[in-house]
Amino acid sequence: MTQENFSAANLTHLDRQGQAQMVDVSAKQPTVREAIASGRVRMQADTLAAIQAGNAPKGDVLGTARLAGIMAAKQTSNLIPLCHPLPLQKVEVQITPDPELPGYQITATVRTKAETGVEMEALTAVSVAALTLYDMAKALEKSMQIEAIHLVSKTGGKSGDYAVIGNG
Amino acid sequence: MTQENFSAANLTHLDRQGQAQMVDVSAKQPTVREAIASGRVRMQADTLAAIQAGNAPKGDVLGTARLAGIMAAKQTSNLIPLCHPLPLQKVEVQITPDPELPGYQITATVRTKAETGVEMEALTAVSVAALTLYDMAKALEKSMQIEAIHLVSKTGGKSGDYAVIGNG
Amino acid sequence: MTQENFSAANLTHLDRQGQAQMVDVSAKQPTVREAIASGRVRMQADTLAAIQAGNAPKGDVLGTARLAGIMAAKQTSNLIPLCHPLPLQKVEVQITPDPELPGYQITATVRTKAETGVEMEALTAVSVAALTLYDMAKALEKSMQIEAIHLVSKTGGKSGDYAVIGNG
Amino acid sequence: MTQENFSAANLTHLDRQGQAQMVDVSAKQPTVREAIASGRVRMQADTLAAIQAGNAPKGDVLGTARLAGIMAAKQTSNLIPLCHPLPLQKVEVQITPDPELPGYQITATVRTKAETGVEMEALTAVSVAALTLYDMAKALEKSMQIEAIHLVSKTGGKSGDYAVIGNG
Amino acid sequence: MTQENFSAANLTHLDRQGQAQMVDVSAKQPTVREAIASGRVRMQADTLAAIQAGNAPKGDVLGTARLAGIMAAKQTSNLIPLCHPLPLQKVEVQITPDPELPGYQITATVRTKAETGVEMEALTAVSVAALTLYDMAKALEKSMQIEAIHLVSKTGGKSGDYAVIGNG
Amino acid sequence: MTQENFSAANLTHLDRQGQAQMVDVSAKQPTVREAIASGRVRMQADTLAAIQAGNAPKGDVLGTARLAGIMAAKQTSNLIPLCHPLPLQKVEVQITPDPELPGYQITATVRTKAETGVEMEALTAVSVAALTLYDMAKALEKSMQIEAIHLVSKTGGKSGDYAVIGNG
Repeated sequence: MTQENFSAANLTHLDRQGQAQMVDVSAKQPTVREAIASGRVRMQADTLAAIQAGNAPKGDVLGTARLAGIMAAKQTSNLIPLCHPLPLQKVEVQITPDPELPGYQITATVRTKAETGVEMEALTAVSVAALTLYDMAKALEKSMQIEAIHLVSKTGGKSGDYAVIGNG
Repeated sequence: MTQENFSAANLTHLDRQGQAQMVDVSAKQPTVREAIASGRVRMQADTLAAIQAGNAPKGDVLGTARLAGIMAAKQTSNLIPLCHPLPLQKVEVQITPDPELPGYQITATVRTKAETGVEMEALTAVSVAALTLYDMAKALEKSMQIEAIHLVSKTGGKSGDYAVIGNG
Repeated sequence: MTQENFSAANLTHLDRQGQAQMVDVSAKQPTVREAIASGRVRMQADTLAAIQAGNAPKGDVLGTARLAGIMAAKQTSNLIPLCHPLPLQKVEVQITPDPELPGYQITATVRTKAETGVEMEALTAVSVAALTLYDMAKALEKSMQIEAIHLVSKTGGKSGDYAVIGNG
Repeated sequence: MTQENFSAANLTHLDRQGQAQMVDVSAKQPTVREAIASGRVRMQADTLAAIQAGNAPKGDVLGTARLAGIMAAKQTSNLIPLCHPLPLQKVEVQITPDPELPGYQITATVRTKAETGVEMEALTAVSVAALTLYDMAKALEKSMQIEAIHLVSKTGGKSGDYAVIGNG
Repeated sequence: MTQENFSAANLTHLDRQGQAQMVDVSAKQPTVREAIASGRVRMQADTLAAIQAGNAPKGDVLGTARLAGIMAAKQTSNLIPLCHPLPLQKVEVQITPDPELPGYQITATVRTKAETGVEMEALTAVSVAALTLYDMAKALEKSMQIEAIHLVSKTGGKSGDYAVIGNG
Repeated sequence: MTQENFSAANLTHLDRQGQAQMVDVSAKQPTVREAIASGRVRMQADTLAAIQAGNAPKGDVLGTARLAGIMAAKQTSNLIPLCHPLPLQKVEVQITPDPELPGYQITATVRTKAETGVEMEALTAVSVAALTLYDMAKALEKSMQIEAIHLVSKTGGKSGDYAVIGNG
C-alpha cells in the first residue's frame, strides 16, 4: 500500500493558485496499467429473488447492467472533468448475486497502455452498472442502496501498486 | 411509501419474453416531477482536512465535483440503457463536509415536466459528483469509499410519491 | 402510401440556395408519432448455428445487439446531421433468427410525441443493432452482410401514414 | 481469405460464462491497420435524378452524408458496446451515383495504428452515411433501401489479411 | 433593448451561496423562442481567395463549417455546464464571404418551443462553425482570428425581446 | 513563423475532387506537440465588477468557465468534423480579469504525444470557456462580445513551430 501524504499540495488536479486543471502527463512513460474496483447494490431478499427469477430465461437484467458498466468506462473522461482521455484495452464487469447481503456484488477490471492509470474508469464502470441495476429493478423496490464503491487494486505506473488490505 | 410488489412481472424494463426494452410512456401525461437522491464519500479525517484547506481559496475541488454531477444528470439517458431522454428543468447538487463521517454528504435535486420521473438523473448526479470527488483527492487517499447512494424522495406522476422514512 | 413528388424542391433539408439546414418545425403540432423499420444480417448457416448455440446460456449476443440498437436510437440526432433532437417515449428492438436467410431479422419500433417523426430513429436502431451483431460474430465470419434496411411504416403527423406494400 | 472456424468458442466477445466483455488486447502490438467497407442505397431512378439535380449547385446532399459517415467513425466505440476506443489516423468516405442500381455506392476507408482493427469503424461510417442519405432524400421517397453493407478488406494485425473475393 | 441591472445577484446561475447550479425553469411556460447570433473569421485576402477557389466545385469548406455549426447547436447543453437540455425546432447557419474584412461572416438562427431561450445554442453554432472554418484553412494561414461573436437578437419569453442597436 | 502558401491545394482537408476527408496521418511520427490559444470576452465595466464581486466567495463563475473549456478540449474531435481523435496529456485554461478591456482574457494550453497537432483543441477550449462565461453573465449583460480567438503558438511536429509575432 502506498504511503499517504495528507497535504493540500497533493490535490494534484489543482494548480498553485488552487485552480482545477488537467495535469501534464506527457513526461510519463506509457506502460500497461490495470485497476480493479468493486461495489454492491443492497436490496430486500424478495427483490433479489425476483431479479434472479426474472433474469433466468434471458439474463437481460444483469446483462444490461454489465454492458452499461462497460460502455460507461469508455465515457469516463467525458464524465470526470479532469480525467485524461485514454485508449482502453480491456474492460470487464462481473455482477454476482450475494444472498447474504442481500443484493449484488459488482467488480470491474480495466486495463490500458498509457501514461496514467485507469482507477476512475474502473470506479465509473462499477457505478454505472450499479445505477443500471437500480434502474432495472426500481419498479420492485425504490429503497435499494448503492454501497462500498472503492478501488480494490491498481498496478503499473511509477507511483507504485496499491491493494486494499483484507478482502477488498 | 409505495407498496412494493415483489414479482418478476414488475421488472418493467423487460418485455414478456424477458428482453430489455425502453417501455412506452406515450400514454402518460407530462407533469412536473422531482426526485432527490443522496450519497456520501467517506475518507480519513486527514483527507477531509486537506480538501477543506486546499479548497479554501478557490473552491475548485467541491465546485468541480458539483459541476460534474450537474453535467452527468444531462447524460443519464446516454449512460443508463433504458432511460428515456428527457428535458430537465432544474439540476442542483449540494456537497457538504461531514466531520463525523468523516467525508462529504452529496445531495442532488432534479426536476422535469415529462411523462416519466427523474430518479435516475438524481442518482446519476450524486454518483458522478462522488466519483469526481474521489478523482480530485485520490492522490491523497486511495481508500476513500462511495457509500449509501439512494433515492431520498420522488414526487409527481401517477405511481405516487415516495420518501425514505427517517432522515433520508 | 404517400404520393411521391420527384422534384429537387422536395429535398427539404436544403434551403433555396441548396444549403443543408435543420428545417423549422416550430409551426407543427406535437402529436404521437410512431415509426417501424427493419433490416437483416445474412450469414452462413454455420455462423447462425454457432451464435444460437453460444447464445443459449446467457443471451448476450442478441441482448447486446438489442441494447445497442435501443441506445443508438437515443443518439440519432447526434449522428444524422439535420435530425431534430426529440424526446423518445418508446424504443423496442426485436431480433429473431431466420434459418431460411440464414441470419437474423431485426425490427425497431420508436414512438415520440413531437413535431416531427422518428423514421430516422427507427432506422438507426436497426442499423446499429445489425452492426453490433456483426461485431459480436465477426471472429466467426467476416463475410456477413447487412441488408434491406428500410422503413416499414410510419404513423402520426400531417404528411399522412406510410406503409410498405407487401410483407414489409 | 482467413479460414473460418464455426465454433461458439469463437464468439470472442463472450467470456467462458457466455457474458459479453470487452476483450483484453493489451498483449497485442500496435501496428498500422486498415479496413475498407462498402454498401449502397437503392432508390427509384427519379429520386436519384432529383438528388443529382439538387446536388449540383452546392453538393450538400452527398457532402452531408459523407461528413456524417466520417464523424460516425469517430463514435464507433460509443455505439458498438464492446468496441475498443481507438485513435483514428484516416477516415475517408466516397459516395458515387450508380444509375444501374439506381442509387448510390458508399465506400469507407479507415486507418489506425493500434492493437486491434477498424472493421467496425469502416462499417459504421458506411451505415451512417447511408442513413444520412436516406434522411436527406426521404421527403422524395420513403421506400429507399440500405443494402449490402459488408467488409471489403482488412489489412494489418496478426489474424491475417482479409479480402472479399470478386468485386467487393 | 432590455434594461441591464449590474448586481451580482443577477448572476442567475449562482445560488445564494455563490454555487453554480442549473436553475429551475419548471414554473415558466413553454413558448416559441428564437435567437440569432453572429461572428466572423478574419483572414488574409489570399486565404479568402484560396478558400473561395477551392470551394467552387464542391462547396465542402463552407458546407463542412455550416454542418459543424448545426450539429454543435445540438451539443450545447453538453458543452455549457449550466444550460438546460432543450428540443430544437430549427437551426440555420449562414456563412458569407466578406472581401472587405477580409474573411467570412457567420450567422446562426435557432428556434425552440421551451421554457428557456436558445441564445447559447445560437452562439455555440457560430463558434463551432468558425472553429471549423479555421480547421479547414489552417494549412493556408494560422493567423486567422475569430471575432465579434455576439447575440444579435432574441425573441420570446417573459424577459422581453433583445436586439443589438445598429447593424448587428 | 512558417511560410504561408496561398494555394487551394493547401486546403488539406479536401481531396483531389474537393471533398472533405479526414486526412491520413499514419505515416507521421507521434511526438510531443503543444498548442496555446487565446481569446477574450469584452463586457461593460459594471458587468466585470459584478462578476468579480459575485465570484469572490466561491469562484464558481470563472471556475465553471475554466472547467467547461477543459472538458470541451476533450470533445474537439466530436465537434470539428475532420479533426483526428487524439489522447490529450495536458489541458490548462487560464482566465484573468482585464479592467482595461474591460473583460476577461482566456488562454488555453494543450499537449499531446501524437501524429498531429492540438491547435483545434486549444482553440476549442478557449471558445467554450468564453461561451460559458457569456452564459454565466448573460442575465447581467447580453451585449458581451467574444473576441480575438487565435492561435498563439504551436510546437512539435515536422511542419515547424509557429508563434504570433508581438504580444500574442
